[in-house]
Amino acid sequence: MSTMAGATETIRQWGRGWAPVCKVMAVLWLVLAAFMTVPWIVLLFEQDPDAEAFALSIGIVLGLVAVTGFVTRRTRVSLKTWQMFVVTTLSWASISGLASLPLVLGAPQLSFTNAVFESVSAITTTGSTVLVGIEGLSDGLKLWRGIMQWLGGIGIIVMGIAILPFLKVGGMRLFHTESSDWSEKVMPRTGGIAKATLGVYCGFTLLAVISYWLGGMLPVDAVVHAMSSMSTGGFANSDASFGAYADRPLLLWMASLFMLCGALPFVLYIRALRGMPMAMWRDQQVRGLLGFLTAVILLLTVWRAWHGTPFFESLTQVAFNVISVVTTTGYAADDYTQWGPLAVVAFFYLTFVGGCSGSTSGGLKIFRFQVASVMLRNQLRFLIHASGVFGSRYNGQVLTDDITRGVVAFSFFFFMTIAGLALGLSLLGLDLVTALSGAATAVANVGPGLGDIIGPSGNFASLPDTAKWLLCLGMLMGRLEILTVLVLLTPLFWRG
Amino acid sequence: MSTMAGATETIRQWGRGWAPVCKVMAVLWLVLAAFMTVPWIVLLFEQDPDAEAFALSIGIVLGLVAVTGFVTRRTRVSLKTWQMFVVTTLSWASISGLASLPLVLGAPQLSFTNAVFESVSAITTTGSTVLVGIEGLSDGLKLWRGIMQWLGGIGIIVMGIAILPFLKVGGMRLFHTESSDWSEKVMPRTGGIAKATLGVYCGFTLLAVISYWLGGMLPVDAVVHAMSSMSTGGFANSDASFGAYADRPLLLWMASLFMLCGALPFVLYIRALRGMPMAMWRDQQVRGLLGFLTAVILLLTVWRAWHGTPFFESLTQVAFNVISVVTTTGYAADDYTQWGPLAVVAFFYLTFVGGCSGSTSGGLKIFRFQVASVMLRNQLRFLIHASGVFGSRYNGQVLTDDITRGVVAFSFFFFMTIAGLALGLSLLGLDLVTALSGAATAVANVGPGLGDIIGPSGNFASLPDTAKWLLCLGMLMGRLEILTVLVLLTPLFWRG
Repeated sequence: MSTMAGATETIRQWGRGWAPVCKVMAVLWLVLAAFMTVPWIVLLFEQDPDAEAFALSIGIVLGLVAVTGFVTRRTRVSLKTWQMFVVTTLSWASISGLASLPLVLGAPQLSFTNAVFESVSAITTTGSTVLVGIEGLSDGLKLWRGIMQWLGGIGIIVMGIAILPFLKVGGMRLFHTESSDWSEKVMPRTGGIAKATLGVYCGFTLLAVISYWLGGMLPVDAVVHAMSSMSTGGFANSDASFGAYADRPLLLWMASLFMLCGALPFVLYIRALRGMPMAMWRDQQVRGLLGFLTAVILLLTVWRAWHGTPFFESLTQVAFNVISVVTTTGYAADDYTQWGPLAVVAFFYLTFVGGCSGSTSGGLKIFRFQVASVMLRNQLRFLIHASGVFGSRYNGQVLTDDITRGVVAFSFFFFMTIAGLALGLSLLGLDLVTALSGAATAVANVGPGLGDIIGPSGNFASLPDTAKWLLCLGMLMGRLEILTVLVLLTPLFWRG
Repeated sequence: MSTMAGATETIRQWGRGWAPVCKVMAVLWLVLAAFMTVPWIVLLFEQDPDAEAFALSIGIVLGLVAVTGFVTRRTRVSLKTWQMFVVTTLSWASISGLASLPLVLGAPQLSFTNAVFESVSAITTTGSTVLVGIEGLSDGLKLWRGIMQWLGGIGIIVMGIAILPFLKVGGMRLFHTESSDWSEKVMPRTGGIAKATLGVYCGFTLLAVISYWLGGMLPVDAVVHAMSSMSTGGFANSDASFGAYADRPLLLWMASLFMLCGALPFVLYIRALRGMPMAMWRDQQVRGLLGFLTAVILLLTVWRAWHGTPFFESLTQVAFNVISVVTTTGYAADDYTQWGPLAVVAFFYLTFVGGCSGSTSGGLKIFRFQVASVMLRNQLRFLIHASGVFGSRYNGQVLTDDITRGVVAFSFFFFMTIAGLALGLSLLGLDLVTALSGAATAVANVGPGLGDIIGPSGNFASLPDTAKWLLCLGMLMGRLEILTVLVLLTPLFWRG
């Protein structure tokens, strides 16, 4: 009897731990279902058969929400640290899975693997695609691809502001002080920041829609590209990616601007709106990103102009593609791998960089380079004057060992994940360049890789299914700052 | 008057700083000249015209020694830290330069660039070559290539034991305690360790000469390969590298063994000789290297056997080539890049690994992986239990923050150097794979790269001259643990 009672108690405890996790996810699934109604309504108006696919998808998601909601109806949601780790990983994974339903059920009738790859790539705002003939998709599916990226974008900003600093992942505690500062002095609660962020994000997206539309895009293209620019996702409505507008410099510059807006810390927009317009300009991370972009764009432009490309054409193309890769958007307006070996190596490196923390972009992110360079400079000084003590500050804050260690550990795990993934891909027969650049572009959430297969004018469709699943894992790990997922794999985590 | 007196005083001070540096270098150049007499005598006996080239080279070096010795005749040698940094870098660079003389003056009549590339590659024990038709060289030149590597090998061991831990470069302080422990308890002075090391090194080389000779090599081949195995240098007497013996498994296994001997910490051999035979086996770094090699060799062997290569043949080839690359020797007994994509990616990664500290091998070195993994494990624990304090030990020693930081900084600089070098190479027109693998193989002092040009069956001769100079810089920086060279480039260093 007592053993049975003990077992029941164990199960009950286990259930008590997991119920809040499921309840939170159910709320997020409900949001997903709500957004599915947008393409559904459009398709109903257009009397497109894809409407059924969306109706069915909405039904499935709502069913799942209903069951989960019923089972956990008495659960109070108050998450401990371990539950936050679990809910973060599981919600991104489950939402990616559910979001793929319309792609399986709709006209493209993607295989399960392809559909999940496409939706993971969308939700993580990576932007690698397996679809061919995107121009021919129904407006509803085009919209859905944009909406998935847009949702992923706002998801990562909120996570970067509210959850990751709390979990102390990868030196993100650096931004803990900042956002808690915010919540105490200027904003009543974190909820306030989240709402303000959503407002800014929506505002920018609307601005992008109007700009693209005035710039000459069809309405549906303007909407989708606005969503995939602001989310630094990079899905386009053409197999040629943004190359469809390669002869429209104005659109390229508009997109460059909006991608850049998506890669800046959203918390600083809010500050600007609250009367601190210089906060953005004074931020060390923002300055770092802008300085870096300016330098790279100028150097590559001059190098291309030197080799015979007219200066303004060169500037437009270089700026667009460099900003696209560094912000981890991943639009391609030209096959830059045809620019010569320097460009190939440069774009390979740019894949790792990433934008600012607290934005929609992925990659290592500028602040980690800055923190690492402070550490490296101190190390060189230490070799010369062993006795000196070197204060380290970043953005006005003292750089504690904690934060530096977090940044360093993240960088190691980041490259190790890419290296491991590339090894797995090579085991499946992918060549060195495809394997390395594919792994990097997935983990950094950029989009295009290098080489003939997955390069900027290529497509992920021809990769083996197992490779696509590996890349899905890489995209999710990259999006969740790797450590969030890795801790779940340690025995210590589950012992606690 | 007083300004002039001041200027004279400044010059005199400057001279006082540099005189000991030059004097130390002159002693090392004298050693170089002494070793040049060996091939010279052989060539005189064989009545080969290359004898003149060596005579002239010896003359030039002795002249330089005489002038330097005369100018610094009153200087007492007692080096401060900054002078040790300078002397370390300059002596390796100048010896590489002077060692190239016979290659310019002798039969192959290499261009200045090619000769310096070959001798830098030799002295740094990298083993990349620009020579074609090595079989046809005079015995004297074959010997000289071996002697250069052998000298570089003993040079790096002594530097790793006596100088680098003192300079605290890249976490090498970890071995400071060890060697000072040694000097106080078991050995009277560092000079004692250096002599004992030299003895062990000579003993192993002699053993290798005899083994190779009994294994069927011609005497001159046995001597050269013995020297390039023990120094983990990798120069061979054939354009096919060790592939000339690909059908002699016994020789391949012998070479594997001697390369491995060259990659273990020499201080532990001395301990073994002094009655602590288990010291080698108990050392965490040695265990790490052997464990890693065993795992990689087994996995690749099984993978190749799975794809149809007979097991023993597969084991021999995999073991030889993996040991060759991991010990940073760089012999090739087969073009492993033809084994398939997995092998290409695997060998690319193996290029970075390196052997043990205090040995002749280059690369990141096993202890840095071990220290980094301790740090990463602690970081994961920290995410789970923020409050915990995690003691870190390595090889029985407490891992201080100092050491961890040194290891981390080294790893960053190591990869940054490779990345920067690869970017430079791509600017000269080298493709991604050649640029990346070329930079990696140079900085890690391995030898062969990947791709058609510089792969294991390729040759560095066809690269542009500027690329060769960049690679020379990379090889020297890699050999001197990068930071030794980098500190010289900081303004702070020269201000002190």
